[in-house]
Amino acid sequence: MNEIGKEFMDKTKFQHAERSDQSMGYPQPPLQKGAGGREVIELPAPGELNVNKIDLREAIEGRSSFRNFSQKPLSLEELSYLLWCTQGVRELMGNAATLRNVPSAGARHALETYILVNNVEGLEEGIYLFLPIEHKLAKIKTGSFAAENITSACLDQSFIRSSAVTFIWTAVIYRMKWRYGERGYRYINLDAGHVCQNLYLSAQSIDCGVCAIGAFFDDEINAVLEIDGEDEFVIYIATVGKK
Amino acid sequence: MNEIGKEFMDKTKFQHAERSDQSMGYPQPPLQKGAGGREVIELPAPGELNVNKIDLREAIEGRSSFRNFSQKPLSLEELSYLLWCTQGVRELMGNAATLRNVPSAGARHALETYILVNNVEGLEEGIYLFLPIEHKLAKIKTGSFAAENITSACLDQSFIRSSAVTFIWTAVIYRMKWRYGERGYRYINLDAGHVCQNLYLSAQSIDCGVCAIGAFFDDEINAVLEIDGEDEFVIYIATVGKK
Repeated sequence: MNEIGKEFMDKTKFQHAERSDQSMGYPQPPLQKGAGGREVIELPAPGELNVNKIDLREAIEGRSSFRNFSQKPLSLEELSYLLWCTQGVRELMGNAATLRNVPSAGARHALETYILVNNVEGLEEGIYLFLPIEHKLAKIKTGSFAAENITSACLDQSFIRSSAVTFIWTAVIYRMKWRYGERGYRYINLDAGHVCQNLYLSAQSIDCGVCAIGAFFDDEINAVLEIDGEDEFVIYIATVGKK
Repeated sequence: MNEIGKEFMDKTKFQHAERSDQSMGYPQPPLQKGAGGREVIELPAPGELNVNKIDLREAIEGRSSFRNFSQKPLSLEELSYLLWCTQGVRELMGNAATLRNVPSAGARHALETYILVNNVEGLEEGIYLFLPIEHKLAKIKTGSFAAENITSACLDQSFIRSSAVTFIWTAVIYRMKWRYGERGYRYINLDAGHVCQNLYLSAQSIDCGVCAIGAFFDDEINAVLEIDGEDEFVIYIATVGKK
């Protein structure tokens, strides 16, 4: 019987922690993937974003998983707001760390945010990578086939196709492993939970609903994102659209 | 070389999902642990809680990890509010599911919340279990040694001892595995991230700071909580105290 989950939790107990690459003097990996020569697209700056105020308690009590999206588009400003709330960089500590709007174990921030854009004003349909340090997007690929591929990789859950934008979080695992070793695999999942919760809450400020997705064919998602599935791999997905 | 993390992510890819216990007709486990005959303590009801309003964006942008707690106590009402925001049950769907203030994969809600109480008005120091369905506490054990044991199990991070209350989330794994098999081990970590993010945000409404903790000796924590570490085990910890 497959008991890999139990084995993982057992072998990543703190008592089994090995000496980290950091403690052995290995160089720290980069803080983000970056554009890598891809076309870069500006987003409205965080300081300029105007969104409705909403009481925190109301947002927490009003959160629910929403799949029945209307076909109203998101504005670029609204998209920028969601990216800001989920991964926005408040402060760059030289090459050592970023401080972001979400917590991360040891401020390692090993996650990357890809978005599948279906219906955002001023953006072609396609896949983009968020550049948290610059607060910009890098274009991975455009075309409506991306939505088909992602939907199919998510067991044909059709609300992906009808979402305005779908967030796909990956982990660049060495950013976390460098300090925490194998226990870092727990932390990237905890971190993705922090991020997704902020998406659920902040979407309510712009009259959007969210539905998180844990059921997806990992390799198919990785292929659409053009990542190797080893050094970087998908961990969590969430759809967003207007109510 | 230990590569358990990679192996875990590989073997829990959706393509490897086995037939679930649910699909084979095994009975669903209970929705919560429950008091199990322990002394039960009332909490102010969610509908009667008065807390300051705070703008969601302000809460997100103002969140930081805070360890320098003052020695002001939390009121029982404030504690009740934090429990409500992190695990509060909005609706009980018979024996099938609970709908809570946080999302969980398939509404499985496999987490339990234990609290280490150091400085809460009207509560003896000690360890308590939150009963989300009743919105009450069950007393596990009282005495100041619990704070010493938890602090020591967290590598002597002294802000645990000085916290007003420390949240300790465990997973009763079969509640998640019953439907999702081994992939459920990913989901309990994602879920704990959702919960902890709500704690970070809601604590700001009551002038509290939070610091999440991922470094702890798992077995020692499990022992203090009197859980077996197999069917139920610690996954995440966060301290709370007044600023």
